[in-house]
Amino acid sequence: MAGNTFGSLLRLTTFGESHGAAIGGILEGFPAGLEVDFSLIEKDMARRRPGQSSISTPRSEADQVEFLSGIFEGRSLGTPIAFLIRNKDTRSKDYDALKEVYRPSHADFSWEKKFGHRDHRGGGRSSARETAARVAGGALAKMLLAKYQVEILAWVSAVGPVEAMVDFNKVDEKQVEANVVRCPDAAAAKRMIDYIEQLKAEGDSTGGVITCLIKGIPAGLGEPVFDKLQADLAKAMLSINAVKGFDYGSGFAAAAMKGSEHNDAFATDEKEQVVTLTNRSGGIQGGISNGQPIYFRVAFKPVATIGSAQQTVNRDKENVTLEAKGRHDPCVVPRAVPIVEAMAALTLADHLLRNKTARL
Amino acid sequence: MAGNTFGSLLRLTTFGESHGAAIGGILEGFPAGLEVDFSLIEKDMARRRPGQSSISTPRSEADQVEFLSGIFEGRSLGTPIAFLIRNKDTRSKDYDALKEVYRPSHADFSWEKKFGHRDHRGGGRSSARETAARVAGGALAKMLLAKYQVEILAWVSAVGPVEAMVDFNKVDEKQVEANVVRCPDAAAAKRMIDYIEQLKAEGDSTGGVITCLIKGIPAGLGEPVFDKLQADLAKAMLSINAVKGFDYGSGFAAAAMKGSEHNDAFATDEKEQVVTLTNRSGGIQGGISNGQPIYFRVAFKPVATIGSAQQTVNRDKENVTLEAKGRHDPCVVPRAVPIVEAMAALTLADHLLRNKTARL
Amino acid sequence: MAGNTFGSLLRLTTFGESHGAAIGGILEGFPAGLEVDFSLIEKDMARRRPGQSSISTPRSEADQVEFLSGIFEGRSLGTPIAFLIRNKDTRSKDYDALKEVYRPSHADFSWEKKFGHRDHRGGGRSSARETAARVAGGALAKMLLAKYQVEILAWVSAVGPVEAMVDFNKVDEKQVEANVVRCPDAAAAKRMIDYIEQLKAEGDSTGGVITCLIKGIPAGLGEPVFDKLQADLAKAMLSINAVKGFDYGSGFAAAAMKGSEHNDAFATDEKEQVVTLTNRSGGIQGGISNGQPIYFRVAFKPVATIGSAQQTVNRDKENVTLEAKGRHDPCVVPRAVPIVEAMAALTLADHLLRNKTARL
Amino acid sequence: MAGNTFGSLLRLTTFGESHGAAIGGILEGFPAGLEVDFSLIEKDMARRRPGQSSISTPRSEADQVEFLSGIFEGRSLGTPIAFLIRNKDTRSKDYDALKEVYRPSHADFSWEKKFGHRDHRGGGRSSARETAARVAGGALAKMLLAKYQVEILAWVSAVGPVEAMVDFNKVDEKQVEANVVRCPDAAAAKRMIDYIEQLKAEGDSTGGVITCLIKGIPAGLGEPVFDKLQADLAKAMLSINAVKGFDYGSGFAAAAMKGSEHNDAFATDEKEQVVTLTNRSGGIQGGISNGQPIYFRVAFKPVATIGSAQQTVNRDKENVTLEAKGRHDPCVVPRAVPIVEAMAALTLADHLLRNKTARL
Repeated sequence: MAGNTFGSLLRLTTFGESHGAAIGGILEGFPAGLEVDFSLIEKDMARRRPGQSSISTPRSEADQVEFLSGIFEGRSLGTPIAFLIRNKDTRSKDYDALKEVYRPSHADFSWEKKFGHRDHRGGGRSSARETAARVAGGALAKMLLAKYQVEILAWVSAVGPVEAMVDFNKVDEKQVEANVVRCPDAAAAKRMIDYIEQLKAEGDSTGGVITCLIKGIPAGLGEPVFDKLQADLAKAMLSINAVKGFDYGSGFAAAAMKGSEHNDAFATDEKEQVVTLTNRSGGIQGGISNGQPIYFRVAFKPVATIGSAQQTVNRDKENVTLEAKGRHDPCVVPRAVPIVEAMAALTLADHLLRNKTARL
Repeated sequence: MAGNTFGSLLRLTTFGESHGAAIGGILEGFPAGLEVDFSLIEKDMARRRPGQSSISTPRSEADQVEFLSGIFEGRSLGTPIAFLIRNKDTRSKDYDALKEVYRPSHADFSWEKKFGHRDHRGGGRSSARETAARVAGGALAKMLLAKYQVEILAWVSAVGPVEAMVDFNKVDEKQVEANVVRCPDAAAAKRMIDYIEQLKAEGDSTGGVITCLIKGIPAGLGEPVFDKLQADLAKAMLSINAVKGFDYGSGFAAAAMKGSEHNDAFATDEKEQVVTLTNRSGGIQGGISNGQPIYFRVAFKPVATIGSAQQTVNRDKENVTLEAKGRHDPCVVPRAVPIVEAMAALTLADHLLRNKTARL
Repeated sequence: MAGNTFGSLLRLTTFGESHGAAIGGILEGFPAGLEVDFSLIEKDMARRRPGQSSISTPRSEADQVEFLSGIFEGRSLGTPIAFLIRNKDTRSKDYDALKEVYRPSHADFSWEKKFGHRDHRGGGRSSARETAARVAGGALAKMLLAKYQVEILAWVSAVGPVEAMVDFNKVDEKQVEANVVRCPDAAAAKRMIDYIEQLKAEGDSTGGVITCLIKGIPAGLGEPVFDKLQADLAKAMLSINAVKGFDYGSGFAAAAMKGSEHNDAFATDEKEQVVTLTNRSGGIQGGISNGQPIYFRVAFKPVATIGSAQQTVNRDKENVTLEAKGRHDPCVVPRAVPIVEAMAALTLADHLLRNKTARL
Repeated sequence: MAGNTFGSLLRLTTFGESHGAAIGGILEGFPAGLEVDFSLIEKDMARRRPGQSSISTPRSEADQVEFLSGIFEGRSLGTPIAFLIRNKDTRSKDYDALKEVYRPSHADFSWEKKFGHRDHRGGGRSSARETAARVAGGALAKMLLAKYQVEILAWVSAVGPVEAMVDFNKVDEKQVEANVVRCPDAAAAKRMIDYIEQLKAEGDSTGGVITCLIKGIPAGLGEPVFDKLQADLAKAMLSINAVKGFDYGSGFAAAAMKGSEHNDAFATDEKEQVVTLTNRSGGIQGGISNGQPIYFRVAFKPVATIGSAQQTVNRDKENVTLEAKGRHDPCVVPRAVPIVEAMAALTLADHLLRNKTARL
């Protein structure tokens, strides 16, 4: 169980090292007969792509997805959908000096302890480049969800100390994509961009928070005990590089609340549907969706690669001073928005399929 | 994939409804030859047991674990370890009135939407009573970890607005077990108990936070991509009833930090071991343990069952007023401490076994 | 992956040693809302039960199945169905002499090599007693299949050198159950019984063959590549104790045939359904059912425990002479008929559920 | 669970349609640090390759394997090893006439019933072309097994009515590869080749049998209950296109034997190792290897595509006469030898890894 596969019925297996021949994946369990919208895949790939704006890494990858199987005459076959993305703009030489050095707060040391042998170039498989395959797979999952009127929308809700104010009932994709930092609160977005530009100039980096909102999810998704919907979402998010925390609905704030102020009263709406009057449950009760919007937050740490000199050790346990040369983002969260959406889509589409056998 | 199994190589499958004949589980993949310390299982069962103190539910279950297989002459056989716990103090009559009613912030509505048919008595399988099987399985996982000098310690770090101050280098089990709220900060513990007693008197409930610390974990545990150690821990924790959030190491606070202040510098210690001088990484880098202590926080919402009258609807979509009669905890976190430890133990023991095939 | 679980969506996990406290299992993924026919479970348990006739072992187990969870008010809940069967008539003393001895063609030696520590009494977990849990789980799978008009019927088609002649179009359960050897060819059945009685008197044993026929299976079950329907059936059958071979449709005989004589021509029947005019394909093409009856054969070796003295070695590698004392069947195939049916039912019910997500 | 993955710890996932862009696979769980012998992969690919001799299909694919990830500086990284094989010599036009026609004893009808939408060209994913990916993955598994001195050798033991006589103690790869039919009995090989040439001239095809022998396997591999070594081997073999049966050790012949003549007596050899004096058990007892050679037979049906005209129906349920035009083998077994070896290697390498956690 080497951990390269996500999902139960809809399964994405990814492969690839950052500076190897290619990265890619296989999406299994995707139902037959769905028309594939390639432009949607391209759109999400472009949102994750390095070099997309002044506040992202100058590394520039076209990230063209080549599909190898599973699609015929524009529709899914029900067989594995394999795809690859060639690695092109790899300046592996930049990493020669790092072959023997453990970069602070990177995976170099722990991976070497695990495997003994590792591809040090660009972080190898520990690089967030692997997430490009998730975005491609997630775009397919979104198409499946769209058939059931499920919509997923994520945005940047905090960058460093700057926090956004967003009305969940009004936010839409256009607002999110209106600026390079992907924050629908235009005023906050401006402050975030300024803050990132400043850190970039200082050779420093910052963390941030992404909020994700899912609408249209039918009641009944999620499994009772270990595979609660929030448990699988938490795993999905914590599997993304640099993520440090996850909470949903009332989240960490719930710990300080009383039951009498936290409970969501049930009522019926004008369509005679059972709804909740508030939504501190975040659309999930007992691990299973209740039909209300699902929402959650994902916290990202600051990018570990920074411009200033850092103390560390090498494989021979000698003290060395590290001065980074690779090309990196001062803040990863704007590019992580489609990754969060992709992992949410894969999780929900999987549970949508799983739910098909819950009852006779 | 009905979600009743946790783990890859060490697999716990649980069964049982709160007021059915029994709950229990099967632990598969437990290596042969390990001497079983039954007193350790009993100790953890007692820590989770209802009715253990003035601040927990008066429901009283002896929670005697009967082992059915997998152990012979006191040692594990390498075959499935099956066990059951009979349900005894079930006042199912208390729930007759609830058969048709959806309790606010409970699983009644979403489960009925999923399965059509449900056991309403005591919440059926959505009841936290299921976690008794996790504690039994987790105690066995702890025994396996102890063979590798791994220790797991959790405690209550917040109850409602009351937060504890704990020195991670000094905290021990004795301090945690010194009071009924399981908070090693004695002064905070007193305030927590007072707060819970007050809410109990008011018929209200509160949330809280549990912190978990894991020492002695070898470097190299965790899998690179989707099954990062933090991802599996996050899933483990979010699968526990009432949990709303998880973060590890620097956690949500990392989002506001700069890379220059967040990075953990590598150095060598007096034993010529590679260590980090700080531990904002929380013992995990790139999804894999680096040998430093692992720590994380788990946020719990307030218990949904409260004494005051609440508005809700029934199966016929009629508005009804609910006045709860079941016996419940005003605050679940003290009893959840062994559950958090159990899930952490199952996660780590699984990864310990998984790591045995990482390299030649 | 300790191998105690069978199935993907409908999953049976079994536990228990032959002379331990109990054997049993958990059936996961069984859809909610199905009415459980307990008499059908009892009937199949009685067909597998030791001591049922003059040609089976005198060991007598009531094999009462106790259900612990997953069923409420007579219908399935969609939650795990756990059950156990207490071990009662265990004369463990009979096995004291065998603690250190490796019985020829038994699992004693290979299991000790694997696990180091083993329960020698009655073969421990390597005993065919474990299959009682499969029969209980299989009976539930049969109920699910019955909802889709799928019928499974197995019978003894050979015992030692005696072979039966059976018309697949006419055979029914009544014919199979008309005699203790479970062979629908009454004349062959008589010769089989005589042969088994003779071997019993000689303290010897014999092998045999079971044929299984499945009618009413819809077209489309089975997965394309590794989980072809015949592949999962083969695994199911070879996982039964004492089974040495499996073939389906034309089977081993196909190896000597020409394509021109083997191919099944397609045609349409009077209901305008596409059918095959012959059925050498055994109801499966390209790993997927085509709507025709599925049939296969399962070969069993002779029971390893025999009355005559045998040469072997013990744990200290000393030569010893073994004279068996346990109570065993001279021929296992009559009692194995419900086991073959149970494993076929579990396989097909699993694929029936799996097929629900094959297309939009 | 779409069935495109084989194995538990060592997992091969394959993708690709016969006339799509490429076929290939991802091998997960391969331990880090193993030196990859690419010539061994090429050798096995050449043995499976179409167009390799006068008795195989004239379709000619170079079958060049391109590795995309998981190997760095010639050694495995412990990360997924992804590879692809471009489809080149695809005369898809040959299949235009078949788009609407169900070829007898092919997968066209059952796949269409399952998926609704299918790639009819060259059989799409139901084509045995998919097995090229298994041979590539199997070659890697062989390298891992070689580190443990495990050797796998398969050969053709029957073609139509012609059967070979082979001494298991003397057979070697050189004898197998000495002729195009891969039969180590030179006299039988000649008759087999003559028989195939004759059928080819007649536009007909034939079935055959492959025998596989595995030496050097350590005692203790295989899991007790459902994942018995023979069960996983049976599944592996029945997952190969055109396979109709599997038996191991004494196989189907065991059904006619007495226990007194079937049992394998234990003894000690000159090295003080526990051995069996005979090996009707086929190297496996109670599902677990006992250190003796493992051997089994695999029966193949005759190739379904033949030159003579056949009656069938099309999608509109009209009767049509089919005259095949594709390029196919008159007998598939010589080319299936490396496929049988590959699936055996994947099965055993997986169990070798699984066994690493059987005991403390």
